Amino acid sequence: MDSIMIYVPIIMALIGLAFMWAKRAWVLKQDAGDGKMKEISDYIYEGALAFLKAEYRLLTFFVIGASIALAGISYIVPTTHILIVVAFIFGAVFSALAGNMGMKIATKTNVRTTQAARTSLPQALKVSFGGGTVMGLGVAGLAVLGLTGFFIILFHFFMNGTWTSTEDMTIVLETLAGFSLGAESIALFARVGGGIYTKAADVGADLVGKVEAGIPEDDPRNPATIADNVGDNVGDVAGMGADLFGSYVATVLAAMVLGNYVIKDMGGSIDDAFGGIGPILLPMAIAGFGILFSIIGTMLVKIKDNNAKEKEVQGALNLGNWASIALTAISCFVLVKYMLPETMNMEFFGEGLKEISSMRVFYATIVGLFVGGVISSVTEYYTGLGTKPVLAIVQKSSTGAGTNVIAGLATGMISTFPTVLIFAGAIWASYALAGFYGVALAASAMMATTAMQLAIDAFGPISDNAGGIAEMSELPKEVRTRTDILDSVGNTTAATGKGFAIASAALTSLALFAAYVTFTGIDGINIFKAPVLAMLFVGGMIPVVFSALAMNSVGKAAMDMVYEVRRQFKEIPGIMEGTGKPEYGKCVEISTKAALREMMLPGILTIGFPILIAVLPMLIGYDNKLIAEMLGGYMAGVTVSGVLWAVFQNNAGGAWDNAKKSFEAGVMINGEMTYKGSDAHKAAVTGDTVGDPFKDTSGPSMNILIKLTCLIGLVIAPILGGHDVVTVVEEVVAIETVVDEVTSPESKEISIDKTKSADGVVTANVTINTTVDGETKTSTQTFVGTDEEVNAKIEEFKKQ
Amino acid sequence: MDSIMIYVPIIMALIGLAFMWAKRAWVLKQDAGDGKMKEISDYIYEGALAFLKAEYRLLTFFVIGASIALAGISYIVPTTHILIVVAFIFGAVFSALAGNMGMKIATKTNVRTTQAARTSLPQALKVSFGGGTVMGLGVAGLAVLGLTGFFIILFHFFMNGTWTSTEDMTIVLETLAGFSLGAESIALFARVGGGIYTKAADVGADLVGKVEAGIPEDDPRNPATIADNVGDNVGDVAGMGADLFGSYVATVLAAMVLGNYVIKDMGGSIDDAFGGIGPILLPMAIAGFGILFSIIGTMLVKIKDNNAKEKEVQGALNLGNWASIALTAISCFVLVKYMLPETMNMEFFGEGLKEISSMRVFYATIVGLFVGGVISSVTEYYTGLGTKPVLAIVQKSSTGAGTNVIAGLATGMISTFPTVLIFAGAIWASYALAGFYGVALAASAMMATTAMQLAIDAFGPISDNAGGIAEMSELPKEVRTRTDILDSVGNTTAATGKGFAIASAALTSLALFAAYVTFTGIDGINIFKAPVLAMLFVGGMIPVVFSALAMNSVGKAAMDMVYEVRRQFKEIPGIMEGTGKPEYGKCVEISTKAALREMMLPGILTIGFPILIAVLPMLIGYDNKLIAEMLGGYMAGVTVSGVLWAVFQNNAGGAWDNAKKSFEAGVMINGEMTYKGSDAHKAAVTGDTVGDPFKDTSGPSMNILIKLTCLIGLVIAPILGGHDVVTVVEEVVAIETVVDEVTSPESKEISIDKTKSADGVVTANVTINTTVDGETKTSTQTFVGTDEEVNAKIEEFKKQ
Repeated sequence: MDSIMIYVPIIMALIGLAFMWAKRAWVLKQDAGDGKMKEISDYIYEGALAFLKAEYRLLTFFVIGASIALAGISYIVPTTHILIVVAFIFGAVFSALAGNMGMKIATKTNVRTTQAARTSLPQALKVSFGGGTVMGLGVAGLAVLGLTGFFIILFHFFMNGTWTSTEDMTIVLETLAGFSLGAESIALFARVGGGIYTKAADVGADLVGKVEAGIPEDDPRNPATIADNVGDNVGDVAGMGADLFGSYVATVLAAMVLGNYVIKDMGGSIDDAFGGIGPILLPMAIAGFGILFSIIGTMLVKIKDNNAKEKEVQGALNLGNWASIALTAISCFVLVKYMLPETMNMEFFGEGLKEISSMRVFYATIVGLFVGGVISSVTEYYTGLGTKPVLAIVQKSSTGAGTNVIAGLATGMISTFPTVLIFAGAIWASYALAGFYGVALAASAMMATTAMQLAIDAFGPISDNAGGIAEMSELPKEVRTRTDILDSVGNTTAATGKGFAIASAALTSLALFAAYVTFTGIDGINIFKAPVLAMLFVGGMIPVVFSALAMNSVGKAAMDMVYEVRRQFKEIPGIMEGTGKPEYGKCVEISTKAALREMMLPGILTIGFPILIAVLPMLIGYDNKLIAEMLGGYMAGVTVSGVLWAVFQNNAGGAWDNAKKSFEAGVMINGEMTYKGSDAHKAAVTGDTVGDPFKDTSGPSMNILIKLTCLIGLVIAPILGGHDVVTVVEEVVAIETVVDEVTSPESKEISIDKTKSADGVVTANVTINTTVDGETKTSTQTFVGTDEEVNAKIEEFKKQ
Repeated sequence: MDSIMIYVPIIMALIGLAFMWAKRAWVLKQDAGDGKMKEISDYIYEGALAFLKAEYRLLTFFVIGASIALAGISYIVPTTHILIVVAFIFGAVFSALAGNMGMKIATKTNVRTTQAARTSLPQALKVSFGGGTVMGLGVAGLAVLGLTGFFIILFHFFMNGTWTSTEDMTIVLETLAGFSLGAESIALFARVGGGIYTKAADVGADLVGKVEAGIPEDDPRNPATIADNVGDNVGDVAGMGADLFGSYVATVLAAMVLGNYVIKDMGGSIDDAFGGIGPILLPMAIAGFGILFSIIGTMLVKIKDNNAKEKEVQGALNLGNWASIALTAISCFVLVKYMLPETMNMEFFGEGLKEISSMRVFYATIVGLFVGGVISSVTEYYTGLGTKPVLAIVQKSSTGAGTNVIAGLATGMISTFPTVLIFAGAIWASYALAGFYGVALAASAMMATTAMQLAIDAFGPISDNAGGIAEMSELPKEVRTRTDILDSVGNTTAATGKGFAIASAALTSLALFAAYVTFTGIDGINIFKAPVLAMLFVGGMIPVVFSALAMNSVGKAAMDMVYEVRRQFKEIPGIMEGTGKPEYGKCVEISTKAALREMMLPGILTIGFPILIAVLPMLIGYDNKLIAEMLGGYMAGVTVSGVLWAVFQNNAGGAWDNAKKSFEAGVMINGEMTYKGSDAHKAAVTGDTVGDPFKDTSGPSMNILIKLTCLIGLVIAPILGGHDVVTVVEEVVAIETVVDEVTSPESKEISIDKTKSADGVVTANVTINTTVDGETKTSTQTFVGTDEEVNAKIEEFKKQ
């Protein structure tokens, strides 16, 4: 029986998309400015679209290849259904759609923000944040719509829309994992490709423009300046959007998988008002309502004072953010109360079944919301302008680039301390509260406000672009001042957004990890087994090598850019005087090509290694359960190391960036005010150059790496014995209590455990416990034969 | 019964020490040069001793504190004997003794090498390597002497020198772990303190001397130059010596623990010519013979041609190294054949008992020797002069310090790829060959040539010092040219030595990890349990934070040095003209104080965290077995992350160093020969500044961090249930087969499993299997009561 509740998330998603559409119309209706501004903004728009088009063309081949591979798996593995291919393709398409939509609106909003900044700061914030809202709601709406929609379709296809058993639901969810895999695969390339693109353009533009030619940032004479602005959109908007789209879907999916196992632990079915699948629907419902509360949150983001500074703008964003988090917390309480049985049985590893009140699940969601908020604060502490760690880096700049770099590295490294302790605490607490279902719901609650988070995130690069357009169009200084305020806040939100993204990726991966273990049916991952330990090592190494590849890619792509800009400066007459027109398109093309070329190797590494770890041991005849543990060890290694390297790189990069920025307003070093252009500032610029690929390419890519690794594990799981494909197990456990008439008052308990193998042979273990005067005597007998034979023997044995 | 074999390692150790003494006498007999040289060398000698003295004074407090803590543990935990305190103190003293001895000879050899270089290069190599040999043999000799000696004493104390049971031997080895803990604790402070010392002096001397005052390296006018030269000895000689001393002892100990469990798996005792403890003696014997073969290896290190270049010197070192490795391989074959039963039973996790031929143990030792050699080659590839990765960093220097730093970081990160794959392969292969005993013996074989490795290692800083003395004494140019050749080879051996040290630390930690699991009696470490997973995260974070602390310490200490040097330049009249005498002692004191102050926090982190993880959950009432798993997860996290960060930091640092050095001979960048003093060279100097603390402070400290963490775990293990201290378990399993006389031919099997709790209550599970016509019927009954009551009931039940 279908419950109406199953459709609620879809309704929420549609409300979100409708609101998005209205907001989009409003943004597009805003004045897009005059000639020069429009021209530049069109260049950016076209450059961004050109990249997306080239990327999607390439990814089409990938999706086709992966689909064929998945179809092969579904052909070989009986429990993997061919529909997984359809789910995969839709996941990929939805993710691409979300990215496309977000990027289009971002590149339309930038020039409108510039134009709005000509009138007032409040209006500029309204427009830029409006663009961010469109992006956020688009991503969240499509994620919930796609996932819930597909779930309903699969639920009806495999189970006729009625609860039958955990095993059937597992098949539904395994197929649904295809949707998540599709989304995350696109995210990988969007994040890595986008990250390489943006930093290649940025570094290339700076090295020749600022350093060699001595022209300022965003100068229209620099051929790479358009590519640089395109990069902001490609990396920070589309990349971040795809990342959170993937997290969102994967988190909810993992929570659904674990909800399914809660039902199993409760005896295989529950009786509730939601067709017996309340624990499975809950994460979708939380996601759905999260969209609603994000909308309310976005409405609160506004300022009134035209003379407002960074603090007020940041305050407005914080208000909206905390409001949506608080509302989500309330909705979690209501939904948990409403949708979950008052008490549930949950299997705790090594401790057996425990009775858990539904309130503990609510507390777990609070843990998730808390982590999401606190991680952002920790990130802000280590990377924000004027904080102690950043000021320390500024001081170290006075003794040269070397000490600046050391200080930045150390800051990034130290920042793992509170971050990891918070993660570890969250894992421990949410598990202690409600098992791995609790961990998954903590992640779901945290992700519920994704729309709001993304709105805040996307607002940054839009403002950055708006400033660039103001500069390139040579608008009055106050316009740039206003956009600079927005841009500066955007830098902080970019850092905290990265904190949120890695926190979500970490919790998502844990939930996926838990789902993986339950899917494979292994009883844990024992790192005392040498092959498992070896894979833990290998897994730990992957994020490090991945980061190095991404960094090297940026270096190579930036060099390409440098050569092209140098060529244009030399060959185009009048370019430096502003009379010759630079060939912006050439630079955009170089960044595009380099990004697409360079994202292949990290992609292959990410996707290839887990497959290799599953396939190679199979070929040499390892036991499937051992392989499942090995792959689990690999996943754990990637997750632990990936989180560490993400936090390290993001925060080091953010800290260097703001250490450099500190010089703009001037800083006190050894009792002297020091400004831009000083030796200390030059040292800080070096640090920032190192930090650029850290914080915008390799660091954020870690999120996808760990999520995708765990998702691939989840898709491989059925092959490794999610269901026993050789024997069909039919378990009949009958417990009867009879009173033996012959002798004195005795109680007799009979339990029967029947198993039928694939070739029809039935094995039954029958145990009779007879209790006389409080002392129990057990008789056990095993019968093997056809079903009838065994039944007859059991009857005979019972009579004894 | 004692076997003579138990004394063989001691004899080998004494031979090694005797040879060392002779070599030492020979070195000291060499000409120590004239006035100025002697004066400078005396400064270095005194500075080094001053540091050691101050360090040992501080460490005395630590040893007293730790001894009291250990005594407390032995008081509370019945199975931990008070003798562990004695073992701990001796371990600490032996380690300090070895460091002291090595440093003394190194600081005496440096000036003699300078003097020898005035005559010829072969003679200079002979002297400098002679000093290294003294260091190597001293460390290895003391390690084997101390460990074996203590084992014999404890073996006689607890077991009267006769095999009784695995349990008794476990108590012997648990007590012996105190020796290892003592050695490793001293190593921690020696490594970290030495690392901070050497880099504070180096960076401080360079920043003011080279950069500000524009005087060359090792200029006697620089007040920090003596501290710099002292640092080479403190860090590279004493630190490395203590590190390998600790590895050596810990590896052999872990192998002995696992040998004890091999005997258990073989039924609790074996009958061999070695008093039934062949598998326990084997690792000691391999270590003992390793000393002998290291002596032979050192004899092969010589060159004849006075015009030899780096290649010939490196070739001579390689010949000696490979000869000792080859001889060790042969001795492993003979010893394994001789000392182990032809086939053994070993428990393989999840696979049960397996019959393993002793040859497979031999193959495992080959795996260890192979890894030791190959890791050095990999390190050389990523860090050597003229290799592809180093040349790539050189190229990137042309676009500035930022790109140079990025390239260096990426090189260090990428180098984890082959390294980790080799480790993972070694774990997998040696385990597949002979279980965790195989892993431990792989490590033992690798460590057997420690004396040779250390001789090669210590030769580097001795030659570096010799060059410094030549420079400061203004000797003829050809002297410096000769010492430069030795120094350059020394740089390569320093890098490969670090590769060896981390490989040994990794394998040692794995062996300790395996010993820990067997000590605690848990059946594995399941990272699917959330608290265990949380601790895996926390463990992974520790090496990152530790590295950051070490790097920051170097920064702080270097700043102290900078201020002092600046002060002297300003206040001492005539210092720049060479007429005023710098106060070298002040700089030595600053480095000493800073090193001792700054090593506290990383030390507390290393020692405190594992204790916290054991104690905190105890206080909130967690199950001991779960705590044991949590601590195991922490150990695994530290090991995996520590190995990664060690390889990353060591290799990045080494690569930067040699990228900078490449400019001395000139390099081709974009078709132009580029030399010292160019902008590209300046960028490379920045990279080297970043790499200095990486490769000499934080990177090498990782070795100790992971070993000490695992050792602390091992010492805590008995508290967490190595022996069940609450209930004394008495297992009586009697299987009788009787023929029931009453009915038709039936067979009856009776098994009894009796357990006695601490308060004397006996619980017996009795199972009777009756087989009639091939069908088995089982009756089980449980009886509880006093011993007599239960026995009576069993008799009654049997009669039924």
